[in-house]
Amino acid sequence: MSARDVIGHLRELAARTSDASGAQRVAWGPVWREARAWLDGKAAELGLPPETDLAGNKWITLPGASSKTVIIGGHLDSVPNGGWLDGPLGVLAGLEALRQYRDKPRPVTLAVVDFADEEGARFSRSLLGSSGASGSLVPDTARHLVDRQGVRLVDALAENGVDLDRMPEARTALVARNPRAYLELHIEQGPVLESMGKPTGVVIGAYGVERHVLRFTGQAAHSGSTPIAMRHDAFLAAAEASLAFREIARRHSTPEAGMVCTVGQVAVQPGIVTAVPGVCEISLDQRAIAPDILARALADARDAADQAARNNGVTVEWRHVWRIEPSRFDARLIELGAEAAREVTGHAPRLPSGPLHDAVEMNRLMPAVMMFACSSRGLSHCKEEDTPEPHLEKTIEAFLRLVDKAVALIAAE
Amino acid sequence: MSARDVIGHLRELAARTSDASGAQRVAWGPVWREARAWLDGKAAELGLPPETDLAGNKWITLPGASSKTVIIGGHLDSVPNGGWLDGPLGVLAGLEALRQYRDKPRPVTLAVVDFADEEGARFSRSLLGSSGASGSLVPDTARHLVDRQGVRLVDALAENGVDLDRMPEARTALVARNPRAYLELHIEQGPVLESMGKPTGVVIGAYGVERHVLRFTGQAAHSGSTPIAMRHDAFLAAAEASLAFREIARRHSTPEAGMVCTVGQVAVQPGIVTAVPGVCEISLDQRAIAPDILARALADARDAADQAARNNGVTVEWRHVWRIEPSRFDARLIELGAEAAREVTGHAPRLPSGPLHDAVEMNRLMPAVMMFACSSRGLSHCKEEDTPEPHLEKTIEAFLRLVDKAVALIAAE
Repeated sequence: MSARDVIGHLRELAARTSDASGAQRVAWGPVWREARAWLDGKAAELGLPPETDLAGNKWITLPGASSKTVIIGGHLDSVPNGGWLDGPLGVLAGLEALRQYRDKPRPVTLAVVDFADEEGARFSRSLLGSSGASGSLVPDTARHLVDRQGVRLVDALAENGVDLDRMPEARTALVARNPRAYLELHIEQGPVLESMGKPTGVVIGAYGVERHVLRFTGQAAHSGSTPIAMRHDAFLAAAEASLAFREIARRHSTPEAGMVCTVGQVAVQPGIVTAVPGVCEISLDQRAIAPDILARALADARDAADQAARNNGVTVEWRHVWRIEPSRFDARLIELGAEAAREVTGHAPRLPSGPLHDAVEMNRLMPAVMMFACSSRGLSHCKEEDTPEPHLEKTIEAFLRLVDKAVALIAAE
Repeated sequence: MSARDVIGHLRELAARTSDASGAQRVAWGPVWREARAWLDGKAAELGLPPETDLAGNKWITLPGASSKTVIIGGHLDSVPNGGWLDGPLGVLAGLEALRQYRDKPRPVTLAVVDFADEEGARFSRSLLGSSGASGSLVPDTARHLVDRQGVRLVDALAENGVDLDRMPEARTALVARNPRAYLELHIEQGPVLESMGKPTGVVIGAYGVERHVLRFTGQAAHSGSTPIAMRHDAFLAAAEASLAFREIARRHSTPEAGMVCTVGQVAVQPGIVTAVPGVCEISLDQRAIAPDILARALADARDAADQAARNNGVTVEWRHVWRIEPSRFDARLIELGAEAAREVTGHAPRLPSGPLHDAVEMNRLMPAVMMFACSSRGLSHCKEEDTPEPHLEKTIEAFLRLVDKAVALIAAE
């Protein structure tokens, strides 16, 4: 059973690169390099020498009858105190696909890529390697980054033989590969599949994100001497707006692709028991898979915040923090993923990805799709991260079927 | 015009004890002692030697035909960077009353008291001197107090000749004075009178306070991977509860005695943009003048918090922080205050006091009442604290009439 081998590899890697607090494969550091050296060994067992591109991504290529290439990706790097599945699952499922195809006729080329620094855990810039490979990385936006010890990203990269300014050149080499499809297996990192009792899901795309900070400004006042009717309570305005944001998310959700609005940060001033808050700042993180829904939800949120401000006699200002377009995966590959999941598990639930993945960068250059394994209790980025083994096994089997289907599709193109 | 003299005294004191940031008469410190020495000088001009009681309060007594005593109180101490009216207004209006009565027949004794450390600005224990005089002070509850420099309250007291353990003995001396009425003139420190366009109000009592911290506990989750329907958002539960608390305040408010509920502190965990809050702690400060209304509002708040918790799939725990009973002032003295205000200003609005005052401590031992001068923009505890001078003058006049009326009432008892 090849899926069992993948799980064996995952456990072997975890044993080598974790401590009592979890996985420690933080990109550009020694444990990550050790993980990659271990992967080199596995590739060598298959007789396939790895290459590293200008963005620091590691490629293992199995040439086929055609240069048309199906790419299978993942990342060995982890957050500090991370889990055993987030990242390596994709790489090691890909390695198993290479092993299976090595000894049989291959109409197309297959390649496995271990992207560098997907997590951005040390320098707060996620998808670094894959954005180099897709060419979307703008070096000047990352040049200033330093880690908590004051080490500069550019120096950490140089230590690993990577030149920040040349990272986007990795796109040229990728395009030269004649890439036709990108497939990625990952854990869900959320509670949806578990709540449905399903081991495997097909990912329809990754949420776009609109991120803002809202500052409500009223008038601080003594809690004892200021009657309710004379208050300008910035917190209550923010509270009213926050509840409205949830209604906006509910209103725009569809059964297949929910959308979400989250207020995760809240700060009031002066922030004392005896004072009506004069200022309240909240973050608003809105995510959706359809650009029009994301845009409408943002417009609705502006209206709701204005209304809440008016209702409470305060003002509100918006500050844009971050934005990324939604990424819709390829419709044909989604169908193939659904077929594969149905054949192995009997079901093919479709869901969007909340977190970003390297697949979003690859989706810029070629048709892409992802498959999710259910996450126990939705946990990830912690040592408790897990998928029940029977579910993990079925999902790997389904993913390997997706590889077969994608190879056949691309071969027939 | 005697009211003008009071204002002159207030300005003289402010000039001596303020800097560019405001009044600096923090209790037990050198500027406060200087203020008191200045008061000694004013008393000496009237031929009235001050005495200090065991709680550090300064008394200036004008004996009359009877030992029955009408007490007029206030406090010279201020918060750091405080205003010119909060505290001294009461003391210096009282001094003016003594000046007026010195040269005319007096059926009763009059006394002015400058209470020590009303503000609690340095050691976070307000009403310290007046709670000594009323006997309500429990020394063990204050023994551990230290200021920000690490100086112990007991040492700061000793520096001023006060022994914490003997402070409650001041009650004996006060009772021996045969006290029959306590009158206090203060600024409102809120926006109510100004909004009515009235210079002077009669205070019906001081709010009781119920203060709690509520901790809502849900489940932290990734903002991208957790659908709205699967969230246990502790912040939204707190937001819903906070809005309900305001409705409770509105429901229980009466035209004469509003009640208030305030959420002044809000903290969420983990408090990051990309996480649904798993924990949200808020403070709840509820105030009312009627004990039954305060009790009902607290019960309603418990129900509302439970309901908000249930609606959001979270739990809520209450932690009691502080409680003080409402203090209703004397009905006859309120009527006299209203008469006096009406005679001078044409109006006699009645209102509760949100902040606490020394009058609350005196109200434990004898009939008490307060009169408020309107506050510009509701500001206090800052150098901008002010009352338009014509309004201040009228209010002092009204207060001096109240003294006359109280003297007559007590004389006739």
